[in-house]
Amino acid sequence: MSDLAHIHHVELLTPEPEQSLAYFHAVLGMEAESREGQSVFLRGWGEYQPYSLKLTESPTSGLAHMAFRSSSPDALTRRVAAIEAAGLGIGWIDGDHGHGPAYRFHDPDGHVMEVLWESDRYVAPAHLKPALRNQPQRYTARGAAVKRLDHVNLLARDVTACRRFATDVLGYRHYEGIRLDNGRETGAWLSLTIAAHELIYVEDARQAGQRLHHLAFWVDTREECLRAADIFLDHGVHIEAAPSRHAVAAGFFLYSFEPGGNRIEVTTGGYLVYEPDAEPVIWTEAERARGQAWGVKTVESFHYYGTPPALEDRAYAEAAGVAAP
Amino acid sequence: MSDLAHIHHVELLTPEPEQSLAYFHAVLGMEAESREGQSVFLRGWGEYQPYSLKLTESPTSGLAHMAFRSSSPDALTRRVAAIEAAGLGIGWIDGDHGHGPAYRFHDPDGHVMEVLWESDRYVAPAHLKPALRNQPQRYTARGAAVKRLDHVNLLARDVTACRRFATDVLGYRHYEGIRLDNGRETGAWLSLTIAAHELIYVEDARQAGQRLHHLAFWVDTREECLRAADIFLDHGVHIEAAPSRHAVAAGFFLYSFEPGGNRIEVTTGGYLVYEPDAEPVIWTEAERARGQAWGVKTVESFHYYGTPPALEDRAYAEAAGVAAP
Amino acid sequence: MSDLAHIHHVELLTPEPEQSLAYFHAVLGMEAESREGQSVFLRGWGEYQPYSLKLTESPTSGLAHMAFRSSSPDALTRRVAAIEAAGLGIGWIDGDHGHGPAYRFHDPDGHVMEVLWESDRYVAPAHLKPALRNQPQRYTARGAAVKRLDHVNLLARDVTACRRFATDVLGYRHYEGIRLDNGRETGAWLSLTIAAHELIYVEDARQAGQRLHHLAFWVDTREECLRAADIFLDHGVHIEAAPSRHAVAAGFFLYSFEPGGNRIEVTTGGYLVYEPDAEPVIWTEAERARGQAWGVKTVESFHYYGTPPALEDRAYAEAAGVAAP
Amino acid sequence: MSDLAHIHHVELLTPEPEQSLAYFHAVLGMEAESREGQSVFLRGWGEYQPYSLKLTESPTSGLAHMAFRSSSPDALTRRVAAIEAAGLGIGWIDGDHGHGPAYRFHDPDGHVMEVLWESDRYVAPAHLKPALRNQPQRYTARGAAVKRLDHVNLLARDVTACRRFATDVLGYRHYEGIRLDNGRETGAWLSLTIAAHELIYVEDARQAGQRLHHLAFWVDTREECLRAADIFLDHGVHIEAAPSRHAVAAGFFLYSFEPGGNRIEVTTGGYLVYEPDAEPVIWTEAERARGQAWGVKTVESFHYYGTPPALEDRAYAEAAGVAAP
Repeated sequence: MSDLAHIHHVELLTPEPEQSLAYFHAVLGMEAESREGQSVFLRGWGEYQPYSLKLTESPTSGLAHMAFRSSSPDALTRRVAAIEAAGLGIGWIDGDHGHGPAYRFHDPDGHVMEVLWESDRYVAPAHLKPALRNQPQRYTARGAAVKRLDHVNLLARDVTACRRFATDVLGYRHYEGIRLDNGRETGAWLSLTIAAHELIYVEDARQAGQRLHHLAFWVDTREECLRAADIFLDHGVHIEAAPSRHAVAAGFFLYSFEPGGNRIEVTTGGYLVYEPDAEPVIWTEAERARGQAWGVKTVESFHYYGTPPALEDRAYAEAAGVAAP
Repeated sequence: MSDLAHIHHVELLTPEPEQSLAYFHAVLGMEAESREGQSVFLRGWGEYQPYSLKLTESPTSGLAHMAFRSSSPDALTRRVAAIEAAGLGIGWIDGDHGHGPAYRFHDPDGHVMEVLWESDRYVAPAHLKPALRNQPQRYTARGAAVKRLDHVNLLARDVTACRRFATDVLGYRHYEGIRLDNGRETGAWLSLTIAAHELIYVEDARQAGQRLHHLAFWVDTREECLRAADIFLDHGVHIEAAPSRHAVAAGFFLYSFEPGGNRIEVTTGGYLVYEPDAEPVIWTEAERARGQAWGVKTVESFHYYGTPPALEDRAYAEAAGVAAP
Repeated sequence: MSDLAHIHHVELLTPEPEQSLAYFHAVLGMEAESREGQSVFLRGWGEYQPYSLKLTESPTSGLAHMAFRSSSPDALTRRVAAIEAAGLGIGWIDGDHGHGPAYRFHDPDGHVMEVLWESDRYVAPAHLKPALRNQPQRYTARGAAVKRLDHVNLLARDVTACRRFATDVLGYRHYEGIRLDNGRETGAWLSLTIAAHELIYVEDARQAGQRLHHLAFWVDTREECLRAADIFLDHGVHIEAAPSRHAVAAGFFLYSFEPGGNRIEVTTGGYLVYEPDAEPVIWTEAERARGQAWGVKTVESFHYYGTPPALEDRAYAEAAGVAAP
Repeated sequence: MSDLAHIHHVELLTPEPEQSLAYFHAVLGMEAESREGQSVFLRGWGEYQPYSLKLTESPTSGLAHMAFRSSSPDALTRRVAAIEAAGLGIGWIDGDHGHGPAYRFHDPDGHVMEVLWESDRYVAPAHLKPALRNQPQRYTARGAAVKRLDHVNLLARDVTACRRFATDVLGYRHYEGIRLDNGRETGAWLSLTIAAHELIYVEDARQAGQRLHHLAFWVDTREECLRAADIFLDHGVHIEAAPSRHAVAAGFFLYSFEPGGNRIEVTTGGYLVYEPDAEPVIWTEAERARGQAWGVKTVESFHYYGTPPALEDRAYAEAAGVAAP
């Protein structure tokens, strides 16, 4: 096991807290585990930790922070030392609902991150007790009924710097990437495990810094992704990219905007990397121009829109019917 | 088109009205379209008519009546004349919520049936308006989210008599059947359309009369049947037969008992009969002994349990945790 | 049952007979039931008749003819009389492999059609015998493994004339349609049964006459449509429109070009029309402009490309890597 | 990453080499990568290594050996030292088709195992080249089209000893288990990664030693497991347990016997273990008595039949139509 085990949670900002909550609860089918101040803590039914999404009211959209859980107390010590050595440390915080002390730091793009060891284990209330003990909670059977947070895709002004930080300091493996003809690296797919991607960096076309491209939540089958699109359609959720299959990382996708303006993916598929010395698969500019796996052209906004939105993209967000802070 | 278009609705009796309603609403994901007296009218999201299930409180379980809609006013006149000629007519009633005058009659086993022409068309309230106009209601995305009533399976003391009544008087086509080595017909799969079965008669092992074997509700994929089983498991619904594939009619099944004791199937699959002169496929005793398509033995209770339950089957119902009136 | 039961078979022309055969056999997974002269007779595994596709070598692409099977000998007599009365009859032919005498006629656009009663019933050879007697052939488990011919979409210079011929003379029901703001009818979805569409007419933008828009083959689940797209990708089949969901008729689609240049759909989903007096759902120009159900814009070529291709569309076909006769 | 990366391949013995090959090639849809002597090397389409299954003619059925790949050369050195220290080492072999030197050893039950580092990477021949470079081979679209070897289930006379060897010497994590009321451990579900199980030990009811319970091959969806059952049915493959869902490890299963008598599972589902300090979920005798997830009773033969079969089980194998050496 690597020193970091997985992304423990993310904190997402929204200027439309009530509508955003309705999206995550009724449409994605997550559970509101608890509330505190301006935040609601939400979870997928398959997550062992109390929550993976802290949704916080804010004047802007975007990612407030993301947190990794280490694989042991010692692993936490090692990673904090490595981060400090890289000169990107901020310092310790006491903890938050559901977890103990966390060490805060920046990635090279300035995204705020945390690493922690102590985490609560979710205990389902009576009405959510699962029938089988190897499952943390019963299946919600509401809306898209997402199982867990799957991956985080961050925009970066310098993808190479962020990718190197992820591999060299955090211990991620580099499975796939994009390199333009001019040599610039514009995307990196990274993982702590055999899952094909858990953290992605793609180039920030607006060079704005510290922005989020999207959060992705997992469902077990492609059929459920299609079902989610049907549900989005009926609920008036803005579909940015209808269900189809990615060429890079081979995952099946459905991209929407939650009412706060953040891009949210429902995802499944892909592959597991059992090869211990796998070379990263680097896609060329020409290959990328072919679009997604089945020839679907990548929607334009996918290449520039992130949260919080750049000034020039506010009109786009407004046209999509979501917040444009 | 045949004179009868389809099964318009059924009236199901339950001694546990609140729990039965919770089963159909929260677990099967139907909508309660309206309430009247001791009845709740429920619908699948894909049904054009206001409801397909009238759930009525009663000291017993079982089927109060089932109603067919004719394909035109003239077709109604023709079928009423044929039923009267067969000596099984009862007479006209004024109508009920959602439909106009109906002619009541018995099948040879004594099940109460109706045939009607005038039916309301469902108009979805604002919160259930679908995004697409060719759909009557939005997908509920709650529980098993069944789409529509698919078929009704009735127990009969004399399957041959009932099958002949269905084909000769009602206009059903006979697609599949079971004949024992002793020549007795113990099952008949019947349809008004290209769907492989819409009405089934199977032998009543208790020879009790007027009993229901099961109602079946449709979902579009086998994956949704499996999902329904997961939902049943978490909700403590009694699963009589876990998802598998029938040999007869080739449908995919999941059998449960709703709290009132009635057997309810979630079904999909099967095939369409485009052959206009298809000979019925008659299964032998030896073939039936092999069990279902993939070798799963048919659960014993499937051969005798119906509602209302026979005296000797009340212990079985109690063991399953459902009403045993 | 209506006088016509279903589309019995179609004859498709191809200038690339070997490659087209490879497409239908290895990629779509159909069986070559027999060969005769320049034709190969192909079938889906779920079809009771010997074949649904007669693939014939020809200098051009397109549809040579399509044939309906009547629901009885009398129904054949009635339909032939009606066609003759409409002044569109051609005359009787002796029959062809797998079926008896057929009456030939034109629809108002000039497409050659036949109606017949006598049809062989498929008898599977030993290596294709199914395990269950209610299935005509074993599942091929090869390529997309399509089950049966589902619908035929014809281009028409005058959609209204063709739609009226289909309903008034052939006995089709009209379930959905498109009407432009200027009042012109540009599409009609028609069916002989409860299936949402079996025959479609859409406007021929090139006004060429007698052309085919596409043939559609059925699979049982959306997952199989996605699987088919993966198979197309690996086999270098040109995907015109990646899997997504139609707004009109609500079907799930995947459009490809077979090597002869004809458009072939793999389809599933949609809905059954149990309402005997359903009013057609007519879509407006504004609704059509929104694209498919999940917002996917309809690919441009879908609006003009048909077979045989118009002169001005040959470059398009060549770019897609298919025959442009 | 742990010192062992994954199960690199297994060698399966069969007294019916031609029929077994037909099962793995035509029914499971694997590719025969090469042949050598009495062996055929087979692979799933998603495997990076040349093969995962070496199928070898032999007077008996069962497992000849299984091989682990280490995560680095150093990891190999460390594991060999640990195995030697445990007193279970045999010694080095030169390698075999597709891999370099391997260190042979026994587990406490006597199963022959290997650990190796040097492995070839599969290079697809032209007709199997995938369209996407992040996939090792095109999808075969033949039969069940299994993707990869998923897990190996071994019978053990002493489950506790084998489980301890796997965790303490090989570095496996222990995710689930079974403990009888008398305290005896009769099953252990083990993994090197976040996958819920990659190696399983269950008690050998015959106490025969060195026996195989089953090999499991992966498909991506439950729908594909059902499809596999349909294919098995048509091909006369013996289905020991029809598709359903396990309670332990939550996987979806379909158990068959290949013609040589070995039990082969087609599997999918389950869950990923992201929790770094997950406590094993230990199931009780009472919980096990409830059967599988949806109440399906575990088939009796599952508790005693393994390969090579015990003397008293030969009649059972013969009745199933498979080799009983």
